[in-house]
Amino acid sequence: MAIETLSVAIQGQEGSYHDQAAGHYFGEAYDPRFLETFADVFEAVSDGRVNYGMSAVENSLVGSIAPVYDLLRATGGVSIMGEVFLGIHHSLIGMPGARIEDIRDVHSHPVALAQCTDFLKRELPHAVAHNAADTAGSASYVRERGDLTTAAIAGANNAERNGLQVLREGVENNPENYTRFLVLGKTENDSPERRSQADKTSLLVERLTDDADELAPGTLHTALGCFAVARVGLTKIESRPVQGRPWRYNFYLDCAAGAENPKMQLAMRALDSVGAVWRELGTYKSGETI
Amino acid sequence: MAIETLSVAIQGQEGSYHDQAAGHYFGEAYDPRFLETFADVFEAVSDGRVNYGMSAVENSLVGSIAPVYDLLRATGGVSIMGEVFLGIHHSLIGMPGARIEDIRDVHSHPVALAQCTDFLKRELPHAVAHNAADTAGSASYVRERGDLTTAAIAGANNAERNGLQVLREGVENNPENYTRFLVLGKTENDSPERRSQADKTSLLVERLTDDADELAPGTLHTALGCFAVARVGLTKIESRPVQGRPWRYNFYLDCAAGAENPKMQLAMRALDSVGAVWRELGTYKSGETI
Repeated sequence: MAIETLSVAIQGQEGSYHDQAAGHYFGEAYDPRFLETFADVFEAVSDGRVNYGMSAVENSLVGSIAPVYDLLRATGGVSIMGEVFLGIHHSLIGMPGARIEDIRDVHSHPVALAQCTDFLKRELPHAVAHNAADTAGSASYVRERGDLTTAAIAGANNAERNGLQVLREGVENNPENYTRFLVLGKTENDSPERRSQADKTSLLVERLTDDADELAPGTLHTALGCFAVARVGLTKIESRPVQGRPWRYNFYLDCAAGAENPKMQLAMRALDSVGAVWRELGTYKSGETI
Repeated sequence: MAIETLSVAIQGQEGSYHDQAAGHYFGEAYDPRFLETFADVFEAVSDGRVNYGMSAVENSLVGSIAPVYDLLRATGGVSIMGEVFLGIHHSLIGMPGARIEDIRDVHSHPVALAQCTDFLKRELPHAVAHNAADTAGSASYVRERGDLTTAAIAGANNAERNGLQVLREGVENNPENYTRFLVLGKTENDSPERRSQADKTSLLVERLTDDADELAPGTLHTALGCFAVARVGLTKIESRPVQGRPWRYNFYLDCAAGAENPKMQLAMRALDSVGAVWRELGTYKSGETI
């Protein structure tokens, strides 16, 4: 029996952490579209050119990916429809026959390089680190260059794919390294069935109050009280600047209840009652860690 | 009469926005030490090699500079002792005789390039943007290269300094572009007199509660209630990941009261009473906008 495929836009190339996360989430139906930027991914979903998009939004060591938060606010017609947490484990990858002590140049994404500084300082103090657009691409580059003194830091899966060798696994500073990925869909394609199964909701609060003085004592406390009285937990709060209003913030809240849950419905009515300006960014099942 | 000079560590070089902000803040006493990274600046202050440091912490369009928040947490013995807000106005700067329509390469810091995308798309659609380590350095580079088709995006002050010409002022997308800079000092050099004049306090909250379940409904609400009941306004909340505890956060709070103010003293006692683990990052006079 033929499996229906789902086109999924991701930033990066085959073998990247995005590719791993989306491949696991969508399983056999996964039909990837490799795009260059996060903005391209959001646009492809918004335009309906793909069934879904997947985008990293936060890493447990490095923190939030601010441009993705801004795209969630600014891109019309896109909703968060799922999430998945991927354990990130970096390997040093080189040409077959390469030896760690001979490596002189290490290529990777700057975030991956930042996550491996202890290993690099300890074992490759004289190697030069080079920024690349993505981890998987840095492995392809090592293959193309074909030089025994050049290595990449990337997921171990990129070794076999490129005919390369894992020189050392687990080169990250901190093994508690996870990235949260969001599944993005076109809002108008959403269904009540899918929404009814959600147990998590993301909201954007653009104003906390209709009071003229947004900086008055207790403003944020009162807005968060809407969730406290409804007994809805918050798993994340992120603040991002409002464009054109210096030192005022948009707040992104991840709430531990689906949007159709009566508790969450109460919290959202309470937000209205305190004069907050807010909207739902999506409601979804809380993600597995893979 | 001789003026006592104050050595001030900044990231970047002469003419940079850091240099402008620090020069204004410290006036005639300003004796700059130009360092390469934010970490170098924090280290110089912590080691007592300089009287002060100054570091950008947030821009009103681009948001927080996450590594600086991490350094505030991780660098021992450094306190925030002041702040200043600098209006950021970018210019396109080229060689004498250069014309906008001939520019083919534009060099600047990636954040400055991101803030000028409208101008670049509209007037220089075919020019290639190149990332540089800082804006002032990109202006020096244009001078060194001496090519009529190469320009930099930097503060207008960098034109005269380098014998260059402002080709266009105000090339930023949004004129409401300000950067907040923190004045950093060695905690042990602080004085009760300085502290008594503060009207703003920055706190780091590493745990919101001594309850085992930090994600229980109302946890953040209860902690923020400490400020609400004390009638202390919050001007900023920033969350950053706890290293090694995925999806748990450190909260950075900027409070609109000095640490010696009885209201703030009450708020801090209340934080203790709810079981929060927290510390002061500094208390200081709220900054001017220059």
